[in-house]
Amino acid sequence: MTGMDATSLAARIERLESRAAIQDLLHRYCYCCDLNDPDGLAACFTDDCFVDYGPGVGPARRGSEARREEGARDLAMFSATSHHLSNVVVEFDDVDRARAKSTVYAWHRPADGGPQWRLWAQYHDVVVRTPDGWRIAERRLLVAGSENFPESWGWLPLGRR
Amino acid sequence: MTGMDATSLAARIERLESRAAIQDLLHRYCYCCDLNDPDGLAACFTDDCFVDYGPGVGPARRGSEARREEGARDLAMFSATSHHLSNVVVEFDDVDRARAKSTVYAWHRPADGGPQWRLWAQYHDVVVRTPDGWRIAERRLLVAGSENFPESWGWLPLGRR
Amino acid sequence: MTGMDATSLAARIERLESRAAIQDLLHRYCYCCDLNDPDGLAACFTDDCFVDYGPGVGPARRGSEARREEGARDLAMFSATSHHLSNVVVEFDDVDRARAKSTVYAWHRPADGGPQWRLWAQYHDVVVRTPDGWRIAERRLLVAGSENFPESWGWLPLGRR
Repeated sequence: MTGMDATSLAARIERLESRAAIQDLLHRYCYCCDLNDPDGLAACFTDDCFVDYGPGVGPARRGSEARREEGARDLAMFSATSHHLSNVVVEFDDVDRARAKSTVYAWHRPADGGPQWRLWAQYHDVVVRTPDGWRIAERRLLVAGSENFPESWGWLPLGRR
Repeated sequence: MTGMDATSLAARIERLESRAAIQDLLHRYCYCCDLNDPDGLAACFTDDCFVDYGPGVGPARRGSEARREEGARDLAMFSATSHHLSNVVVEFDDVDRARAKSTVYAWHRPADGGPQWRLWAQYHDVVVRTPDGWRIAERRLLVAGSENFPESWGWLPLGRR
Repeated sequence: MTGMDATSLAARIERLESRAAIQDLLHRYCYCCDLNDPDGLAACFTDDCFVDYGPGVGPARRGSEARREEGARDLAMFSATSHHLSNVVVEFDDVDRARAKSTVYAWHRPADGGPQWRLWAQYHDVVVRTPDGWRIAERRLLVAGSENFPESWGWLPLGRR
């Protein structure tokens, strides 16, 4: 019965519950984007989060307040967006901290008309358990490709060989 | 050992199993669409389901028989479709009822030739446990954007600010 | 307390853990594609795997070494790809073997310039538990539609009615 005492079973259940909660967190981020909800976006992150969306959106800034401000600024560029998150993989460092990887297909309709912007990219995250639930502590956006974004927009590359 | 008796552990496992079963249900709907299987589509819903895909597909009708008829009618417009479901989030009202949200990217090749139709949207569902498994009791399709659908097609908006 | 002894609970937890591990495996395949990592790709499969990506990529060959070679050959055609996996459904034959279905949206930027290639398709897999974890033993790629692939490229059809 090794590994089948209640404490061991509970730990395995908690790991599965944490995996689900982290998936929910990453999905909530997408829903907040597509509803243009900068407050909700900021609440996906830790107070002192570090986020790097690449040089195109300006120097990486720390903190959830920067997430709110930049979310409001960036989402105002569009009249509609749709973020589709796939391939979520979670690797736990310990019960309260994990690294998560996901792949995003993001569709954007610019507010000024003009052709749709598309993005094929990955989020590489560190997520942590806080008293208020799982939050994103670090996020980097690594880009496979984009369509109709301004040429000056700089991205972190995916690191393909 | 609070929360670690067998009954508590079983309840937590059941919640995780229900979440998986609901994800499977939402995915099965997509597979039935893409195989042009109206009977399979109808079987994803409760007998008295309420579904609103927006004014473009006619007034919302109640019941799984309407799902079969409208599924047959709508899928006949295309020679191929591909429904890609992401961002599934499940919130339980109780052990037998939950609200599920998901994001769909749907690609369609019209049967009459012409350019591909694309849809970026969300399903907002109520799902319930029946004797035959989890079923969709209510579904609304909220649309972020579409491409090449007829102009007269009306959608329920996403509610973006 | 039927079904609530530790052995029964552990079996249910293991089923959920296996489902998660199989999802991770299918996602790892996508990450290896997009990083152009043929060794990583090959490691997603059993030594004697059978894979059929359709006549367009040549006759189906058995074995993980064929996966490495064909992965290297096919990925060299592109300067970037992004594979987005959705709709993962796992059905277990027993604790060590399952059938998995998933839907893929794959974006490709050809190395020689030219327009992007897009693919809307499904993977139909048999996955097995090995001493090194879950691996893909059989994979067929069934295609709903494609864009800008060479006309001579042959696909296995989805089987839509």
